[in-house]
Amino acid sequence: MSTRDKKKTSGIPEGVVGRLPVYYRYLVELSEKDTQRISSAQLGEALGITAAQIRSDFSYFGSFGQQGYGYRVDELLTQIKGILGLDRTYHMVLVGAGNLGRAVASYRNFKERGFDIRAIFDSNPLLEGNYLAGCIIQPVSRLEVYLEANDVQIGVIATPREASQEICDRLAAKGVQGIWNFSPIRLKAPDHVVVEHMHLTESLLRLSFRMRNRTERTAPASEHS
Amino acid sequence: MSTRDKKKTSGIPEGVVGRLPVYYRYLVELSEKDTQRISSAQLGEALGITAAQIRSDFSYFGSFGQQGYGYRVDELLTQIKGILGLDRTYHMVLVGAGNLGRAVASYRNFKERGFDIRAIFDSNPLLEGNYLAGCIIQPVSRLEVYLEANDVQIGVIATPREASQEICDRLAAKGVQGIWNFSPIRLKAPDHVVVEHMHLTESLLRLSFRMRNRTERTAPASEHS
Repeated sequence: MSTRDKKKTSGIPEGVVGRLPVYYRYLVELSEKDTQRISSAQLGEALGITAAQIRSDFSYFGSFGQQGYGYRVDELLTQIKGILGLDRTYHMVLVGAGNLGRAVASYRNFKERGFDIRAIFDSNPLLEGNYLAGCIIQPVSRLEVYLEANDVQIGVIATPREASQEICDRLAAKGVQGIWNFSPIRLKAPDHVVVEHMHLTESLLRLSFRMRNRTERTAPASEHS
Repeated sequence: MSTRDKKKTSGIPEGVVGRLPVYYRYLVELSEKDTQRISSAQLGEALGITAAQIRSDFSYFGSFGQQGYGYRVDELLTQIKGILGLDRTYHMVLVGAGNLGRAVASYRNFKERGFDIRAIFDSNPLLEGNYLAGCIIQPVSRLEVYLEANDVQIGVIATPREASQEICDRLAAKGVQGIWNFSPIRLKAPDHVVVEHMHLTESLLRLSFRMRNRTERTAPASEHS
């Protein structure tokens, strides 16, 4: 737990981290519209987050707006991209070309943000050789061969739950640093491998919670995510 | 903003709300294994959350473990189900039967938790009449007729982004109370309609953030979700 020698950004509280992608997306929109500056009040209005919260969040990465002037959009965007690790390209492999895998592979937004699916694997021989999002679907038995010959940082797991832990192990064994898991089980991975679970059920439970409790905007990160 | 007369559960901080589904899922597992009691330390160990955080979270809904005894699993589960709104059944319609819609419709976990997709709509005439997850795919022009004749609480939007705001408007106009949005745009809905966005990109950005910063377990809610 050597918190002392961690980079300062890793001390950002989870709540702030959760809002970073929200800020990021909105700042990209502003930047595309050539907006130069934005105040915390305007940002707050657009995102349903209080201006005080925004100023507090931004202070974590050392960005302070000027009174009566606000924040510079491009500067803020560059900082947030750096913190989010978006100043580089990630090579990805996708394992599982079922409905969910196809949906992920076809999602347009990823590649332009630097997330590039380079190879797709599936255990179903009927899918072998088919094209999906510009990749040929390969047999999953070829996964190790591919990972040895290519530099891959992220593995996306969209297999049935029965297969996902094994695939996770195989990806980790070949040096993949991050795993994006769409299967509905908690995966175990070595400490140096980051696992991000994408669970549909949690989102649905948040919906039912909010329907039950009718909170108004207590959850900017999920409400605008 | 009449926070005073809201139910006490709506005062639960967002961080706690984010962890509720994590607790819920693990307690279901324990319950299925006939585990009667669990201490905050054991829960913490299993979920990567500190025991103090767990005790603090549980105190929000008035559940206090006994020293040296812990929490009763079934009691805790009943409380969390109540707070999450899982003590009832939700009727859902799904609009959009593309890759993502098919993935959602085929997801096995929802129905057993009370989320029941009763009808599926798509604008593609080629899909009309096909079966998906036990439903016949209907033309989206029939959406209003269906919603008038049936009691539906939740609408799931898995359409292309161009169509999603219109579908959201149509669902809200016919009295749907909650919208689960898979399209990559921020939807506007009337205040009484709860919108839960399910954005793949945000999850991927959290992954790259964590790879960049290699935080150990700062994010129990997303890490275990």
